[in-house]
Amino acid sequence: MTQLPPELVREALKRNKVKIENYKGIEYLRFVDDFKDVPRGTALFKSFTLWGYPHIGRIFQLSTGLKEQFTHPFFVEEKVDGYNTRIFLYEDQILALSRGGYVCPFTTERVEDFINLKFFEDHPNLVLCAEVAGPENPYVDEHPPYIKEDVQFFVFDIMEKDSQKFLPYREKEKLIEKYGLPSVERYGLFSVEDVDKLKRLMKRLSEEGREGVVMKEDSERDKRVKYVTFYSSLKDIEITSVNLLGLPSDYFTNRLLRLALFMEEEGIEVDQELFLKVGKAFLEGLLKAIEMSKKDGRVYRTFRCRFKTRENALLFIESIKHASSQVQVLQRRLEKEGDYWVLEFDRVYLNMTGLLGHLLAGGSIFD
Amino acid sequence: MTQLPPELVREALKRNKVKIENYKGIEYLRFVDDFKDVPRGTALFKSFTLWGYPHIGRIFQLSTGLKEQFTHPFFVEEKVDGYNTRIFLYEDQILALSRGGYVCPFTTERVEDFINLKFFEDHPNLVLCAEVAGPENPYVDEHPPYIKEDVQFFVFDIMEKDSQKFLPYREKEKLIEKYGLPSVERYGLFSVEDVDKLKRLMKRLSEEGREGVVMKEDSERDKRVKYVTFYSSLKDIEITSVNLLGLPSDYFTNRLLRLALFMEEEGIEVDQELFLKVGKAFLEGLLKAIEMSKKDGRVYRTFRCRFKTRENALLFIESIKHASSQVQVLQRRLEKEGDYWVLEFDRVYLNMTGLLGHLLAGGSIFD
Repeated sequence: MTQLPPELVREALKRNKVKIENYKGIEYLRFVDDFKDVPRGTALFKSFTLWGYPHIGRIFQLSTGLKEQFTHPFFVEEKVDGYNTRIFLYEDQILALSRGGYVCPFTTERVEDFINLKFFEDHPNLVLCAEVAGPENPYVDEHPPYIKEDVQFFVFDIMEKDSQKFLPYREKEKLIEKYGLPSVERYGLFSVEDVDKLKRLMKRLSEEGREGVVMKEDSERDKRVKYVTFYSSLKDIEITSVNLLGLPSDYFTNRLLRLALFMEEEGIEVDQELFLKVGKAFLEGLLKAIEMSKKDGRVYRTFRCRFKTRENALLFIESIKHASSQVQVLQRRLEKEGDYWVLEFDRVYLNMTGLLGHLLAGGSIFD
Repeated sequence: MTQLPPELVREALKRNKVKIENYKGIEYLRFVDDFKDVPRGTALFKSFTLWGYPHIGRIFQLSTGLKEQFTHPFFVEEKVDGYNTRIFLYEDQILALSRGGYVCPFTTERVEDFINLKFFEDHPNLVLCAEVAGPENPYVDEHPPYIKEDVQFFVFDIMEKDSQKFLPYREKEKLIEKYGLPSVERYGLFSVEDVDKLKRLMKRLSEEGREGVVMKEDSERDKRVKYVTFYSSLKDIEITSVNLLGLPSDYFTNRLLRLALFMEEEGIEVDQELFLKVGKAFLEGLLKAIEMSKKDGRVYRTFRCRFKTRENALLFIESIKHASSQVQVLQRRLEKEGDYWVLEFDRVYLNMTGLLGHLLAGGSIFD
């Protein structure tokens, strides 16, 4: 499918599955939810469509999972813990979309610091799919420990405008090579028999504090599956327990399941150290939230990121203000530091703030 | 309000908030949800109505909670970990309703073993509200450790037919005394200044493996609040983690919050032993579920209870078969043992069974 049928777009608009957006005068449509076969994040510009980045299935055990999922060998790459972006040429400028299909002022502005723009001159029809990660990213609480400041870009896929398919793996590698694009780490081709080899890799990634891997079958169907490290499942709980009530109901159960199925696969039945870590991950976040509630009257996390212009920083903070009804965005400061405008803001978790405030004041709830 | 307005009942019927039930030829209506001011579990019989047992608010901290909730001294009673029943006279027979307003064949049959029926001869218009608890109860996974076999009944309130109000505390005590009714433990009258005294009581109850207390204000408004032990919050996680996916989303977050707010109130910041217990509570249940899934192909819990007649046992198991679409009830055995027919059955947790089976076979999920 190259173009979306106009009647589908009209229906989606009518059902509020599509929103009209405007980035510095560029009007576009954005699918805010999956709708029929169109994934969330699909963005329609005047003369082309960028398809949303597809969902990738997750396996919870390697020994059975590889056999079940793959019929051919598969490439293994690092899954970097950041946020997904699609970078492309619009007329004479480079834009970067968030996973949700929103032109992100932060990501857009930083592309040139990491990506060789010659790539887009030579291939105006190609789209780089990349992860943006680092301690100074404005979206995600976590980041790989090997990024010490700011953010970095990691290309992991290349697609064409108006297409849902990715370039073949080897073609992607050639382009990454040719333009010196920053890429996720690539660990080469594995077969379904390489369970032990993959487990050793996962063990190393876990020890290094990395998130996991994405596996991409070396075949026409380009089947993809992801699998994460033990470290990552635990870290997710640790980082997000401060906002325990603001996350989807299955967020924590899913991570606990990952931990338990990992233990089962590895034959770990009782591991006091591990039990301790899980309990700590839950309770320390909550205790921190309680402390914030008592001290500041609100439960929040502070984000910090760098902009080249003040204008873009303000545009960015305006754009995230209405992203969630459960999160309030409060600007802390915006100041020039060296070459950058440093923006600091809080995401205030309204559910946690409200409930903890109520309970700490002696309120009761009907549960 | 003594009688429900017929138009309200008709509207509730239309909206499926009321179901028509039949217990051995006795027809009645049952509110399956809260509807307007009528609580779930309200049951309408030919000539009278039994109001549903009201929700009781829960506080998470004592030092602020007592001050906030009470304007007068309050009676403190044990909150027994079992299920709530309302026992009453219908024509010439005693019936017992579940919290949901269902005439329970198990509870109904066992009343006479624990309750002096002279009470109903003298007071045909009164309703006993009691907790039924013990290792051989057919509903609840947990039970107080001091009940070693079978079940026991514990009266905690007395109400009238056609009324939402409870008898005054001292009147209740007199009737309990007069008829030798089994009662929850009563710890007497406390004032809002008795925080430390109440904390000492809670500490003892927690050490004894009891659930907590219900506090009932000694005043016209009869305000009630509950507060549970640290032990109970932890035990809930431990017992139910085997069915991690089958519980409401806030089940676990609520218990974690109770633990954290207890720690905060008691000034416990870091307690390795406690972290260990929490992690263990989550993971051991999950590991057990995984083991069941591999061994038996399903995740379940086995219940056992005693009946006087085979007929009632069959009626009971039939009645719970369609209670939840997420739980399958499977009879294991029904055999005469001494004076009783012993029924054993499994509750199979379909969500856990399905998902674990899928993941252990190497399946993937889109999360």
